[in-house]
Amino acid sequence: MGLPEMDIAFVLYPNMTALDLVGPYEVLASIPGIRSHFVAETRDAVSADRGLTMVPTTTFAEMDRADVVVVPGSGHWKEALEQQPMIDWLRKVHPTTKYTTSVCTGSTLLAAAGLVDVATTHWAVRDLLASQGVEVSTDRVVESGKVITAAGVSAGIDMALRLVAMEFTDAGAKTVQLAIEYFPEPPFTQDEIGPEIAEGLKALLG
Amino acid sequence: MGLPEMDIAFVLYPNMTALDLVGPYEVLASIPGIRSHFVAETRDAVSADRGLTMVPTTTFAEMDRADVVVVPGSGHWKEALEQQPMIDWLRKVHPTTKYTTSVCTGSTLLAAAGLVDVATTHWAVRDLLASQGVEVSTDRVVESGKVITAAGVSAGIDMALRLVAMEFTDAGAKTVQLAIEYFPEPPFTQDEIGPEIAEGLKALLG
Repeated sequence: MGLPEMDIAFVLYPNMTALDLVGPYEVLASIPGIRSHFVAETRDAVSADRGLTMVPTTTFAEMDRADVVVVPGSGHWKEALEQQPMIDWLRKVHPTTKYTTSVCTGSTLLAAAGLVDVATTHWAVRDLLASQGVEVSTDRVVESGKVITAAGVSAGIDMALRLVAMEFTDAGAKTVQLAIEYFPEPPFTQDEIGPEIAEGLKALLG
Repeated sequence: MGLPEMDIAFVLYPNMTALDLVGPYEVLASIPGIRSHFVAETRDAVSADRGLTMVPTTTFAEMDRADVVVVPGSGHWKEALEQQPMIDWLRKVHPTTKYTTSVCTGSTLLAAAGLVDVATTHWAVRDLLASQGVEVSTDRVVESGKVITAAGVSAGIDMALRLVAMEFTDAGAKTVQLAIEYFPEPPFTQDEIGPEIAEGLKALLG
């Protein structure tokens, strides 16, 4: 089909949020010619913040380039910022990428590596991202040069579909969207959810 | 908080579709009092149909009840129907559940176990599901008694949010929806995707 071959690095780390990674994975890994790599500090299995355990296929030491990097967020975002080998690897591999992407609080990890100037993130950590010197957008997906950031968790699906449309074709993105039947019917609108729920959740998330 | 304790069985099997499982997992496993179990034929790691490998926490032999069962689909749905130990386990555990649920082609597995009369599924396997004697709905989420089925892949998120609203409260579902920022912005509408893309994809999916 003449599609480019691409190596995609899906980054795994302890207490990451699984859906942040699996949303973009399901979109991107379905493209012909894509090679998916699940990269972590070691090859030991990694447990996500709700208990799902996933297995890396390679390590930061072994992987020195990638066409696309996908960095998930975490419900324990402060601890994630202490994952120095991952942050160092992001800084190392970024010059080799065509796209460096994040989902949810993953943008705070890109910020720690000094890779973003404008970004979105999970709504609960906007202040943190701003404190890292990043101009914070409230958009669901933000492109800044080759860095693409997505808002909280499920926004990674939207980000990845946009990346497919940009890098491949609209027809490719339409095909994937149809394959995963991404015609969402969320039960509530943002207005229906309202500020009390947000305040309660923010207190809970710490 | 007085929330009920519940055991949720997330079923793993070879070549399952990861997002079918991880969508509902991200929604349900965040509820306080939930115990998540990843159940498979053995404790060996299981590779999904796009290469992500996940680790079971228990086996069909060890788990004889669950409050909620979540059965994902597969891009290799015909082979999935040959996973007899899983189908036998679904039949065994179903009488113990409060909800038995599926995502995508997972409804064909519930059908093989004789557990559904009306269900939805991935659009590409509606004929297969009908051939199993099931009345096929094209809705995104279908409730039939305690069996809740979701359409393709991403529909599992909608299904799980509905389950939270039913079993817990609207406030609970709103909280989770906000936590995962499920305010989707899919790039295309169903009308924009159109029949040519669907025909091409159906040919590809076999």
